[in-house]
Amino acid sequence: MSWLPEAAAAARAALPGASAARDAALRAAADAIRRDANKILAANAADLAATEGNAAFRDRLALTPTRLAGIAEGLEAMAALPDPLARTLAAWTRPNGLAFRRIPCPLGVIGMIYESRPNVGAEAAGIALKAGNAVILRGGSESLQSARAIHAAMQAGLREAGLSPAAVQIAPDADRAHVAAMLAGAGLLDLLIPRGGRALVERVQAEARVPVLAHAEGLCHTYVHAAAQPAMARAVVANAKMRRPGVCGATETLLIDAAVAPALLPPIVADLTALGCAFRADPRAREILPTLPAAGPADFDTEWLDAVLSVKVVDGLEAALAHIAVHGSLHTEAIITEDADVAEDFLARIDAAVGIWNASTQFCDGGEFGFGGEIGIATGRLHARGPVGPEQLTSFRYLIAGSGQVRP
Amino acid sequence: MSWLPEAAAAARAALPGASAARDAALRAAADAIRRDANKILAANAADLAATEGNAAFRDRLALTPTRLAGIAEGLEAMAALPDPLARTLAAWTRPNGLAFRRIPCPLGVIGMIYESRPNVGAEAAGIALKAGNAVILRGGSESLQSARAIHAAMQAGLREAGLSPAAVQIAPDADRAHVAAMLAGAGLLDLLIPRGGRALVERVQAEARVPVLAHAEGLCHTYVHAAAQPAMARAVVANAKMRRPGVCGATETLLIDAAVAPALLPPIVADLTALGCAFRADPRAREILPTLPAAGPADFDTEWLDAVLSVKVVDGLEAALAHIAVHGSLHTEAIITEDADVAEDFLARIDAAVGIWNASTQFCDGGEFGFGGEIGIATGRLHARGPVGPEQLTSFRYLIAGSGQVRP
Repeated sequence: MSWLPEAAAAARAALPGASAARDAALRAAADAIRRDANKILAANAADLAATEGNAAFRDRLALTPTRLAGIAEGLEAMAALPDPLARTLAAWTRPNGLAFRRIPCPLGVIGMIYESRPNVGAEAAGIALKAGNAVILRGGSESLQSARAIHAAMQAGLREAGLSPAAVQIAPDADRAHVAAMLAGAGLLDLLIPRGGRALVERVQAEARVPVLAHAEGLCHTYVHAAAQPAMARAVVANAKMRRPGVCGATETLLIDAAVAPALLPPIVADLTALGCAFRADPRAREILPTLPAAGPADFDTEWLDAVLSVKVVDGLEAALAHIAVHGSLHTEAIITEDADVAEDFLARIDAAVGIWNASTQFCDGGEFGFGGEIGIATGRLHARGPVGPEQLTSFRYLIAGSGQVRP
Repeated sequence: MSWLPEAAAAARAALPGASAARDAALRAAADAIRRDANKILAANAADLAATEGNAAFRDRLALTPTRLAGIAEGLEAMAALPDPLARTLAAWTRPNGLAFRRIPCPLGVIGMIYESRPNVGAEAAGIALKAGNAVILRGGSESLQSARAIHAAMQAGLREAGLSPAAVQIAPDADRAHVAAMLAGAGLLDLLIPRGGRALVERVQAEARVPVLAHAEGLCHTYVHAAAQPAMARAVVANAKMRRPGVCGATETLLIDAAVAPALLPPIVADLTALGCAFRADPRAREILPTLPAAGPADFDTEWLDAVLSVKVVDGLEAALAHIAVHGSLHTEAIITEDADVAEDFLARIDAAVGIWNASTQFCDGGEFGFGGEIGIATGRLHARGPVGPEQLTSFRYLIAGSGQVRP
């Protein structure tokens, strides 16, 4: 028998109610994380000592005093945001006098499956609590001791605010069967959010019997239009690719109009090369810069998550949209142009969670949207697209007030 | 090889664009239905001649000139509604100058699986088109000839408006494998809407690899509180149960406060009895009216969809909420009371798509909400709850306009 049915029932019974209590719990959890910092760091050191992962893996797993302080500050910032439940989404009255209100409500019990990144659990719990949800966390097994220590602090925060600690739970141990139980948790969990590598997310999307918000891939394009301002194009492309090449909003493919490529592609490539970027170029780009390595057939479908950029020369907006329609991942797509009509056309016709005009694709981030954080980015079409913050973790319902109306 | 991949790709390529064209297509489809009325009625007569269903089944299958006129009028009414895509859902500017817009967009390709009710296909297609979606319809096999005739009219409307007829498609024949293909249609369909009996909906919910909006059950309660106005309680309960006992928003269980039950339950029962209603009563109700049949253990979990009412005497709001929490179906729950504080408490704490104060549960209907119709009622927590009209068949995305911002 899985641990999940009992945990989920306890979580549902513990849905945190009033706005003030939820925010107090977030602040108290931040205090507890600071108070227990040495305990959490010791647990993390034990996790690190037991793992054989590579340097990048260990970096994601590692907590430092600075990172812990960031987690605590993030929880306090979340507490300071407006309550996403304290809104009226719509209100109207029908000719028969019935008064309708559409109001937000929590989604319920959210399952979060993620890799060995202890900060993700704390952030996810904070966002879920902010919107009145309960959360069941299942992080990577290598981070179990860190996750337990942070979880203890989150539960201390709930208790200090007079809320049930069952509103934030973690899987009891590293048993992989817990993931399977969560995937099969229809009726127990209202939503699953997987966050991690493509294999993890695709497994959850393929196997879950529970609704999923996620993105498996962020194959984002920046399209430099013929009317781009050259200096802006250079600065934005360099940032979109190289600020953090490993994030899902990083640009993976540069599309550049043939009209400006001879003049503009060389300095763009020079900027990126100076930042350590490599290239995979189509034949027309290699006509301009023959030393660029040739792109293979799969390169324009590859999310590099690394200091590599695919480059293609296109003949205007239609060609750019056609390329993105085939190779994009419905995540984030950007155009650089001074022509407002072209930009509006691009934004209207692009099928993506986020369309950007004259800025870096790396702005696809809940914090940059003003959401106070995010639990992930969603590229599906249902419920929420783009950064998933507290407001996206709400549902809604209708309240109708009458005076004895009956339906004819 | 299923017909679905090709059909879904054609549907996606045919997503109907501009508002004026979508509305023109709806009006032209209404014209075509009127023009082809004799053809559609003949097809329906052939369906009816070939079926051996019972009277209720035949009634749902049957089209009449009046019903056809109603379908055409419904499409025209849909065309007259505001475009659900022509809105800005939110707009804000961040301190770095990035200007954000959140705008609606179509969900995409919607699969509709329903029973042998030809009108449902036309209504569903109309609502989907209104919101810019394409739709693939799979109605009950007994209605295939009717569905084809109506489908021809819908496609004629699309053609006359200059839109691709591939935006409304039907499964090519009555092969049951088509349902299985739609359930497995991840990546082809963006949403499945099953509409019909509980077995159909539960099968779709259990097996679909595509997001589902639906309700399997409408086990709705009307709670007559101690401070109910007696005449209002009688009129509302009679309507909530007996206006149309077979709809999902019909009240299935009456909860009545012990304080008023001795005075109020007898006239409520008398009203309903005069309308042909039968009862299943708990022991406390039978103390007041010993002739009422005793409720069995499963009766308070039974969606009667018939002229039968479960009756239970409760001790106030907490007991009513506790009963509904165990036996409700997250659909529609009503309270009758003159005490506004109690009503607000009930509405705030009820977990249902629709909470109603002093009116009949049978108002849970897209038309009554002002949505111009509905493709079904959803009781899940994701994306949309309650009546699913055109607005509920939209998704959203973000557009960001900058002036060369890069992320630090």
